[in-house]
Amino acid sequence: MKPYVEMSREELLTLKSELDGACKIQEAKDISLNMARGKPGASQLALSMPMLDVINGQSDMKTLLGNDTRNYGDWDGIGECRQLLADMMEVKKANVVVCGNSSLNIMYDTVIRSMVKGVNGSTPWCRLDKVRFLCPVPGYDRHFKITETFGIEMINIPLGEDGPDMDMVEEYVNNDASVKGIWCVPKYSNPTGISYSDEVVRRFAHLRPKAEDFRIFWDNAYCIHHLYEDDRHQILNILEECEKAGNPDMVYIFASMSKISFPGSGVSAIATSLKNMEYLKKFMTTQIIGHDKINQLRHVRFFKNIDGLHTHMKKQADLLRPKFEAVLDILEKELSGTGIGSWTKPKGGYFISFDAMPGCAKAIVEKCEQLGLVLTGAGATYPYGKDPQDSNIRIAPSFPTPEEMAEATKIFVLCVKLATVEKLLNS
Amino acid sequence: MKPYVEMSREELLTLKSELDGACKIQEAKDISLNMARGKPGASQLALSMPMLDVINGQSDMKTLLGNDTRNYGDWDGIGECRQLLADMMEVKKANVVVCGNSSLNIMYDTVIRSMVKGVNGSTPWCRLDKVRFLCPVPGYDRHFKITETFGIEMINIPLGEDGPDMDMVEEYVNNDASVKGIWCVPKYSNPTGISYSDEVVRRFAHLRPKAEDFRIFWDNAYCIHHLYEDDRHQILNILEECEKAGNPDMVYIFASMSKISFPGSGVSAIATSLKNMEYLKKFMTTQIIGHDKINQLRHVRFFKNIDGLHTHMKKQADLLRPKFEAVLDILEKELSGTGIGSWTKPKGGYFISFDAMPGCAKAIVEKCEQLGLVLTGAGATYPYGKDPQDSNIRIAPSFPTPEEMAEATKIFVLCVKLATVEKLLNS
Repeated sequence: MKPYVEMSREELLTLKSELDGACKIQEAKDISLNMARGKPGASQLALSMPMLDVINGQSDMKTLLGNDTRNYGDWDGIGECRQLLADMMEVKKANVVVCGNSSLNIMYDTVIRSMVKGVNGSTPWCRLDKVRFLCPVPGYDRHFKITETFGIEMINIPLGEDGPDMDMVEEYVNNDASVKGIWCVPKYSNPTGISYSDEVVRRFAHLRPKAEDFRIFWDNAYCIHHLYEDDRHQILNILEECEKAGNPDMVYIFASMSKISFPGSGVSAIATSLKNMEYLKKFMTTQIIGHDKINQLRHVRFFKNIDGLHTHMKKQADLLRPKFEAVLDILEKELSGTGIGSWTKPKGGYFISFDAMPGCAKAIVEKCEQLGLVLTGAGATYPYGKDPQDSNIRIAPSFPTPEEMAEATKIFVLCVKLATVEKLLNS
Repeated sequence: MKPYVEMSREELLTLKSELDGACKIQEAKDISLNMARGKPGASQLALSMPMLDVINGQSDMKTLLGNDTRNYGDWDGIGECRQLLADMMEVKKANVVVCGNSSLNIMYDTVIRSMVKGVNGSTPWCRLDKVRFLCPVPGYDRHFKITETFGIEMINIPLGEDGPDMDMVEEYVNNDASVKGIWCVPKYSNPTGISYSDEVVRRFAHLRPKAEDFRIFWDNAYCIHHLYEDDRHQILNILEECEKAGNPDMVYIFASMSKISFPGSGVSAIATSLKNMEYLKKFMTTQIIGHDKINQLRHVRFFKNIDGLHTHMKKQADLLRPKFEAVLDILEKELSGTGIGSWTKPKGGYFISFDAMPGCAKAIVEKCEQLGLVLTGAGATYPYGKDPQDSNIRIAPSFPTPEEMAEATKIFVLCVKLATVEKLLNS
């Protein structure tokens, strides 16, 4: 296919006319599809339905230690669930507190607590003139929303194939005391799907933060969410690396089972050093008497152990892979050689990241919406919703069926082409 | 029985010697009982076990509106659960957001949010020199812990038979702009069991706060937790009264099902004005994508409606009443006429409040502990854990069996007598 930028005005006009026609036909179909959020599809949810049978009215409700999960107690989670999450997060049980259904909520709590009470006794962030967070981009909109909500200034850090631009990260963290944190999705990153290389993880661990209260917010949301059994990403253990590098308290790791069992009805956890834990505990035990331990028990009895988790995730991968591949096939077939877009080919996680020609993303998302296809808002993958290039679009293939996904991608491709042609004609 | 204060030194010494002997015998029994926390007993938990059958692997998981409870969505709770909680809290569904398992957590969130972001746009409390909360005493230690954690100064307000001393409340709230809140348990109060009279509720509604960001934290924890069917307390609807009085935004109401279904595995809610809700929403939707909707569905399918809740609570009352009565009977029999203690006779809720002779509470709790009976720490019912009279002790009769409860109360009474005799001998 001829690169669009090499087309003459005449060729572009002809193409536009064809594309306009295709749009009209598509519009008449009156479809309604949604690729906006990383929602598991119905077939994935069905996989977890038997979990709802493992605890019933006749069940023994005691933990291995004999504690009654139905009553108050075990504020940090029942032992066997802490162990399961520890194995999933590749840390020691002693470093894990199991919380409620949402790891996002733990992140929010961690930030707001630092605002009011600082970090392990440091000056509360709300008393400082300026607090900044580094934000590898494109990234996760809900991370950015937390820091935005509290008036924390966000700085874009380009995210490459191996992780964030570590020269920039070091420059900021090691020299600027107002830099208090960085949002990371180190494995199968949202939305690009890349995983941090060993070198990147080690450079993180070896940071020498100017601010004693600088913390890495390591959201390992997709830690066991592989798409290809024979091409599993493995990342270094950041907690261990930080310990080795003499920075034992520099990281908070977050994870949840929202995309393992049920979104909203999973269990989440934070893992961090014992010293950080001691500080967190004061607030966590003020905040709540305890989380839902029956649900913790339900998860442990269903998945049993880390092997059970992996087996379950393999079944999920079998359902997700065709959806990713449906998108990638059509993108390849329709856009390869046109020079009007590039995209990632993730080996895990929930998203495909698409980069349109600069200045086209908003127009593409709008056009898709007119044709009945809802995408994540353009700009959402950047702090403040502002993509400086207006180029990045996050594609979430999990919710529709593979057939719907193929149909949606055709609409998407049509809109990418049309928006780009219009952009070229107007420039 | 002769009042202890009228006893001669000789009589007191003889009594002490008898009591010391009884203590020795008791100590040798090596018992272990716990009346420290308001934990439901095993028989109460058993009542809710069938709830774990109503959702299983074959269940239809859709809400009445057809939303899938297993996936993201419905951040404010599924409609039918909002309705159930609204009916329980005696407010309109539109005013309710259903949250996670813990109303304490919603209160914590509400306070910490006000610290960082103020109330509906007011100056964040963390930027103010002084923030104060009124604390009716005796009250709930976990409320006080939240405000203490954030350095909010707490002011004791005596709690009477009808509610807090409203003259004092009005004096503070209407004249002191640093007073931003008051902790209330308006029905079957923790620990005294009293309920606010209509006049008290109306005086609350008619406050004219000096601070625009003053809020009443109305923890209606025991709203349907009656002990006596024929003597149910009913309190005025604070949200309606506030509206009528021109103070529609002055109250946050909290409630949960922790002591209805399972502690830690219930559902909780906040009810407030639509204007407050609009402000809360910005933070709640940043904090979490959504709460556990499967558990919400489980509760609705089990309890069905407010009548179902009342029927369930009647069964709980049948189990709790004998425990309360076991305590009250022994207190009456052993202490009546001695003048060394007074206590409340609650018609609902989870606690009995005992007032020892001033200066004796700590000694009583210590002595009980030596005999194997754990009570809530003396002072816990006051801000900062400091009971200025060292007099109040909270008795939680729910967890032990009625027989254990009787045994525990005998130990308690023994310790009350001995501590008081020792106090009198040393004064």
